[in-house]
Amino acid sequence: MSKEVNSESVSLCPLNTAAAPEQELLCIFGTGDLGRSLGQRLLQCGYRVVYGSRRPHSCGPLPPGTQAVSHGAATQSANLIFVCIHRQNYDFLQTLAPQLNGKVLVDVSNNLKKNLYPEANAEYLQRLIPGAHVVKGFNTLSAWALQNGPSDSNRQVYLCGNMAEAKQAVTETATKLGFTVVDRGSLSAARELEDFPLQLFPEWRLPLRLAVGLTAAFFFYLIIRDIVYAYVVQGKDVSFRIMVSLANKVFPIVSLIMLSLCYLPGVIAAFLQLYRGTKYKRFPDWLDRWMLCRKQLGLLALAFASLHAMYTLIIPIRYYVRHRISEITISQIRENITYKFDTTMAWRTDSYYSVGILGFGLYILLGISSLPSVSNVLSWREFSFIQSKLGYLTLFFCTFHTYLYGWSMFLKPSYYKWYTPPAYMLSLVVPSVVLVLKLLLLLPCVDRTLTRIRQGWEKTDPENDSKKSLLT
Amino acid sequence: MSKEVNSESVSLCPLNTAAAPEQELLCIFGTGDLGRSLGQRLLQCGYRVVYGSRRPHSCGPLPPGTQAVSHGAATQSANLIFVCIHRQNYDFLQTLAPQLNGKVLVDVSNNLKKNLYPEANAEYLQRLIPGAHVVKGFNTLSAWALQNGPSDSNRQVYLCGNMAEAKQAVTETATKLGFTVVDRGSLSAARELEDFPLQLFPEWRLPLRLAVGLTAAFFFYLIIRDIVYAYVVQGKDVSFRIMVSLANKVFPIVSLIMLSLCYLPGVIAAFLQLYRGTKYKRFPDWLDRWMLCRKQLGLLALAFASLHAMYTLIIPIRYYVRHRISEITISQIRENITYKFDTTMAWRTDSYYSVGILGFGLYILLGISSLPSVSNVLSWREFSFIQSKLGYLTLFFCTFHTYLYGWSMFLKPSYYKWYTPPAYMLSLVVPSVVLVLKLLLLLPCVDRTLTRIRQGWEKTDPENDSKKSLLT
Amino acid sequence: MSKEVNSESVSLCPLNTAAAPEQELLCIFGTGDLGRSLGQRLLQCGYRVVYGSRRPHSCGPLPPGTQAVSHGAATQSANLIFVCIHRQNYDFLQTLAPQLNGKVLVDVSNNLKKNLYPEANAEYLQRLIPGAHVVKGFNTLSAWALQNGPSDSNRQVYLCGNMAEAKQAVTETATKLGFTVVDRGSLSAARELEDFPLQLFPEWRLPLRLAVGLTAAFFFYLIIRDIVYAYVVQGKDVSFRIMVSLANKVFPIVSLIMLSLCYLPGVIAAFLQLYRGTKYKRFPDWLDRWMLCRKQLGLLALAFASLHAMYTLIIPIRYYVRHRISEITISQIRENITYKFDTTMAWRTDSYYSVGILGFGLYILLGISSLPSVSNVLSWREFSFIQSKLGYLTLFFCTFHTYLYGWSMFLKPSYYKWYTPPAYMLSLVVPSVVLVLKLLLLLPCVDRTLTRIRQGWEKTDPENDSKKSLLT
Ligand SMILES: Cc1cc2nc3c(=O)[nH]c(=O)nc-3n(C[C@H](O)[C@H](O)[C@H](O)COP(=O)(O)OP(=O)(O)OC[C@H]3O[C@@H](n4cnc5c(N)ncnc54)[C@H](O)[C@@H]3O)c2cc1C
Ligand SMILES: Cc1cc2nc3c(=O)[nH]c(=O)nc-3n(C[C@H](O)[C@H](O)[C@H](O)COP(=O)(O)OP(=O)(O)OC[C@H]3O[C@@H](n4cnc5c(N)ncnc54)[C@H](O)[C@@H]3O)c2cc1C
Ligand SMILES: Cc1cc2nc3c(=O)[nH]c(=O)nc-3n(C[C@H](O)[C@H](O)[C@H](O)COP(=O)(O)OP(=O)(O)OC[C@H]3O[C@@H](n4cnc5c(N)ncnc54)[C@H](O)[C@@H]3O)c2cc1C
Repeated sequence: MSKEVNSESVSLCPLNTAAAPEQELLCIFGTGDLGRSLGQRLLQCGYRVVYGSRRPHSCGPLPPGTQAVSHGAATQSANLIFVCIHRQNYDFLQTLAPQLNGKVLVDVSNNLKKNLYPEANAEYLQRLIPGAHVVKGFNTLSAWALQNGPSDSNRQVYLCGNMAEAKQAVTETATKLGFTVVDRGSLSAARELEDFPLQLFPEWRLPLRLAVGLTAAFFFYLIIRDIVYAYVVQGKDVSFRIMVSLANKVFPIVSLIMLSLCYLPGVIAAFLQLYRGTKYKRFPDWLDRWMLCRKQLGLLALAFASLHAMYTLIIPIRYYVRHRISEITISQIRENITYKFDTTMAWRTDSYYSVGILGFGLYILLGISSLPSVSNVLSWREFSFIQSKLGYLTLFFCTFHTYLYGWSMFLKPSYYKWYTPPAYMLSLVVPSVVLVLKLLLLLPCVDRTLTRIRQGWEKTDPENDSKKSLLT
Repeated sequence: MSKEVNSESVSLCPLNTAAAPEQELLCIFGTGDLGRSLGQRLLQCGYRVVYGSRRPHSCGPLPPGTQAVSHGAATQSANLIFVCIHRQNYDFLQTLAPQLNGKVLVDVSNNLKKNLYPEANAEYLQRLIPGAHVVKGFNTLSAWALQNGPSDSNRQVYLCGNMAEAKQAVTETATKLGFTVVDRGSLSAARELEDFPLQLFPEWRLPLRLAVGLTAAFFFYLIIRDIVYAYVVQGKDVSFRIMVSLANKVFPIVSLIMLSLCYLPGVIAAFLQLYRGTKYKRFPDWLDRWMLCRKQLGLLALAFASLHAMYTLIIPIRYYVRHRISEITISQIRENITYKFDTTMAWRTDSYYSVGILGFGLYILLGISSLPSVSNVLSWREFSFIQSKLGYLTLFFCTFHTYLYGWSMFLKPSYYKWYTPPAYMLSLVVPSVVLVLKLLLLLPCVDRTLTRIRQGWEKTDPENDSKKSLLT
Repeated sequence: MSKEVNSESVSLCPLNTAAAPEQELLCIFGTGDLGRSLGQRLLQCGYRVVYGSRRPHSCGPLPPGTQAVSHGAATQSANLIFVCIHRQNYDFLQTLAPQLNGKVLVDVSNNLKKNLYPEANAEYLQRLIPGAHVVKGFNTLSAWALQNGPSDSNRQVYLCGNMAEAKQAVTETATKLGFTVVDRGSLSAARELEDFPLQLFPEWRLPLRLAVGLTAAFFFYLIIRDIVYAYVVQGKDVSFRIMVSLANKVFPIVSLIMLSLCYLPGVIAAFLQLYRGTKYKRFPDWLDRWMLCRKQLGLLALAFASLHAMYTLIIPIRYYVRHRISEITISQIRENITYKFDTTMAWRTDSYYSVGILGFGLYILLGISSLPSVSNVLSWREFSFIQSKLGYLTLFFCTFHTYLYGWSMFLKPSYYKWYTPPAYMLSLVVPSVVLVLKLLLLLPCVDRTLTRIRQGWEKTDPENDSKKSLLT
């Protein structure tokens, strides 16, 4: 079969396939795609490879320089064995248990779905062959990466296993192949490793759904209030406003609500702790889950805020805006009116912009500090200073920005088209509540109690005490 | 006591509290908040826990499934002991020295202030019980993280200790609890680890103070020159300009000054080395400290530059600006004037914007390259190419941008209100000096000498030589 | 000689130079700059240091507290020896082979150019003294960092070597000096480590050249079409447009082309795999190289897109634009015309901006996900979801943005000045081709075959089969 192999491919390993004396022999069980890909890569990095196969004579094309023999034969020559077989076929390995005694077995398998089996593949393998040292690893890589070496998404190889020496041996091989190894502890972490490649942003789902839901709802609300209203009541077609004007109302609203939803659970948690008088009772499930997706809520809020910033900045180059402005100027001249400069208006709008920009600056700071490499170099005190203290400041600035935008609008009935309040008012409800509750928590007496509770103090009411003496 | 415990909380560890045979028993000294929090977490991750207490029968509620016994009894059953006691109470541990021989003691303690004690808590513990293997660790985590497992700010656990095996054992436990371990070497690093949780941006203090000081000073200067002057001399109230116009003068000024302060120490250092003829004499203290906060100076300068960018981009949507523009247009018509298009003006302003944008782009590149994860993948040559070469280019662009802004303003007496120069001129002093000095350093003859000095060459003037022969 | 030494410099190591009993003695071969710098740092961190020199009595000033003796004498007292000698002088070390037996030799050397010698310095050293344990390391640091401890660019020390214990010993020392150690495997990685400090963005060269080339070409094209044409045909000097207007045409064009060049190789690769019916044949060299610089292509494209965004946002504050707008308004009044509001125009321009902003948002998301610390926490599935799926979406948005910009311009002969098409049309060619090809690949039948091929399936045409049976 005329088959070229990727032998000169991009590889940092020396190609001393022939000369070097200390070439190690590795064994691969399974001649499928994974086995072949891995074998090629090992060859490129100067290893010798032998395949173990159930049908050594009819197992299809293998990388040149390798051969397939029976599992038993393959086992004898190597100490490190990559198991590139599907889990369904593991059971036959049991028959090889004696030969596999003391060998290092690398389980690279993945499943098609989560929770398909009661135990992790690697743990199952270990149970089948208790005498072998099973190491879970490489499964977070794609077959493509196994064949071609690391690229951006997969420079890291996660390993776990119960025996340090076995992991060390696999680590050596992985580093030779160009990967960076992260040790994840004992084999009980295998389940986690096997779930890793299957996940697609699990912790982003809820926040994303919320964002999409809010966006859709407010778009709908604004289309009714702005577009349909103008069409029905004033007979004007302003549908073109959907693209920028409406979007630039929806984005800041969603951003502000999501930002406040990011700080609401913390406040609720604090009140719950105050009420219960202890921090050792666990939070209700919904609160727990909510608190765990605050980072994602916050980052999505930042994304919406950035869109708001961009949409705001292009306002003056829009055709519609330019047309309006020249229209106003022209009508001023034709009708010989002069609008007097209104200092209050100047103060208000300038403050409005200024507060918005400062809030956005802090927003971005929060975003930067949540980059893994940045949060890793921060101490816990520093991180929570930024996320909690500056986070509340951000929320305050953004809420204030929105109040300044509204100004006295809420007093004018003309803004309540069809008896509905302007959308910006709706967006102010949650942030205002959060800020007021937070203020309450900052009252010295409340703050003192809360601090004590968080340091482990517990309110022991007499009832409890008597119960305790009865029970213990 | 009716007490629920966070037993189903968010944990990736299997909850095989009952079945698994190989459950390890760990011991915790101390039943305070830290001890209880840590104990809960260990239980959740499948360990068995026993508490050592001075008053085992009256030590308050413990996580269910654990019990408190005397320190001696607790010690016997476990090899790994977490010491969750305050340092003040360490001394009594001395009495346990024989039982603790060969055990691994994890010191998780922190102090309330830096330099409270002459030696690190962990070193003190090691001195008290020389036969034990003390490992410092987990102290960079909050009690909250110890109880609930890692979150963003504290995925990493720092360890240090003198014995590799002891560290290995603690590492295993930490990875099981979900943390990533960073080994910081021998126990002499304990002090550093104990100081870590206490710090709140120590290296940012000086640059921040400088930034605040400069901002306040220039705000004051501009309020006098712009607002007060207009009020006193022209009788106009332009106080609204504070919010945006003034801010947008102060921010670029502070940014430019801080950027130049970031490159000034390098130039001073170079001249000092040239003058001394050696690189082996240490710099004066102030220069050392200055050089160590250049990163922070630079990043703050970038923050101010970004604010400047935002404030500039909102200019055309400001009420004041729109009003002015329409006023000008209207007056042109009413008075029937036509302003001719001025090509020089167009060239100048466009260049001004263009140079500013390119400078800002480079600025951001500097910022990106100082993210830890980015600077880690750069070689030293690459990093200093960006920070030094492109950094000077940034400084040049930003300075040039300011000169273009000023243009011929410095020639017109009307700009020197109350005999004070416009603020932008003040901001040009330091950058111009830095650039000129840098140009001098780039002269071939100077550059050659400097390079030789930095490669270790030393000027040996005759006087020195004679001294040397006398002394050695 | 009156020589102060940097002894109080910025160091986190305790300065227990005198008291501590367990001070380790290290040996340094070579008293040049590197040796002296390293020695100083070691002293500061509490080690004792002895120098090995060929002329121990005339080797110039050494850090106080150290002394130079003969190589042989120096060797006896220490187990860890830093070899700070140039490779050219290694050969004399052979004479010391017996004394160096079992010692750890740290090779810190670098070469002036790549591929100067057939084998890595460290491998050469190992060959000269087979009985020693050579560890390559510290060479990625500058002498400056060796003397002063880690700073931002060089917190990480890369090590490689064949013996784990030797590496462990060097690791201990490096962590004591304040560095973080990354183990790069066996000594065969030494070459890579020695090349690392020499490189200056090697993988950025090609994309950078491409970007510069495209920018220059389009600038030239547009100067002809816009500036020269206006001058020759209309007799107007609009040269000032170079600074902003032209730049803001060139940048988006280059960005779009580079973005599409980032996705073109993937499409070509897919068609090649379809045509060949296998994924095991390696790609032609040019394609391989192209695919390896896609990240850089993409990031440069993002940089150009950001410049485009900034240049667009400053449009309304430009003198030229303000002048034009007021001119138009004035002429409307003087000539008493009223431009009617054109809803189609409003829809089109607003869509144009909106699509552009969304595309830019995705662009930035791609950029963020390619930060090392972010891509490290993503699973391979997540990373390729962002880079591939959202990447194509970005390309689609940006292309659509450009089509909306062009609108019906391509129908109007007046836009074909001197029979050349507007530049934006040229920029649409590659992206359109890429998108069409990608659409073809998404057809169910094609997609199915491709997926099978990528899972390892191979088309076995009869010819091949017969060949195979003949050959094997
Ligand atoms: C742009 C952006 C980025 C963000 N990135 C992140 C991120 O990377 N990571 C992240 O986690 N969040 C992130 N967030 C969300 C948010 O900023 C943080 O969750 C923030 O810490 C919430 O502050 P808090 O004071 O409400 O909550 P917390 O500080 O978590 O406190 C709230 C509650 O938690 C409990 N608690 C916390 N600490 C203790 C303790 N020591 N002892 C006892 N109980 C305690 C208490 O019940 C308390 O009431 C981000 C937000 C934004 C807008
Ligand atoms: C946005 C932004 C981000 C920044 N981020 C960072 C950052 O992450 N990290 C950081 O350090 N700085 C950062 N800076 C600050 C600044 O860019 C750097 O400090 C830059 O390296 C200074 O360049 P330099 O040429 O003046 O100094 P250097 O390259 O440090 O040289 C100046 C002096 O240092 C000494 N020196 C340096 N190298 C040697 C050597 N090999 N041998 C002998 N002596 C030597 C010499 O005395 C020399 O005169 C940042 C700046 C900005 C604006
Ligand atoms: C701002 C920005 C940042 C970027 N950052 C990065 C970055 O950090 N890292 C990066 O790599 N790219 C980056 N890129 C470039 C680009 O987004 C990616 O390369 C992207 O993955 C290309 O997608 P694709 O679908 O064309 O290619 P791929 O997903 O690589 O697929 C293309 C071809 O590769 C081969 N292939 C890939 N996977 C397999 C497989 N599993 N089995 C068999 N064959 C396979 C096939 O031949 C396939 O036809 C960036 C781009 C931009 C605009």
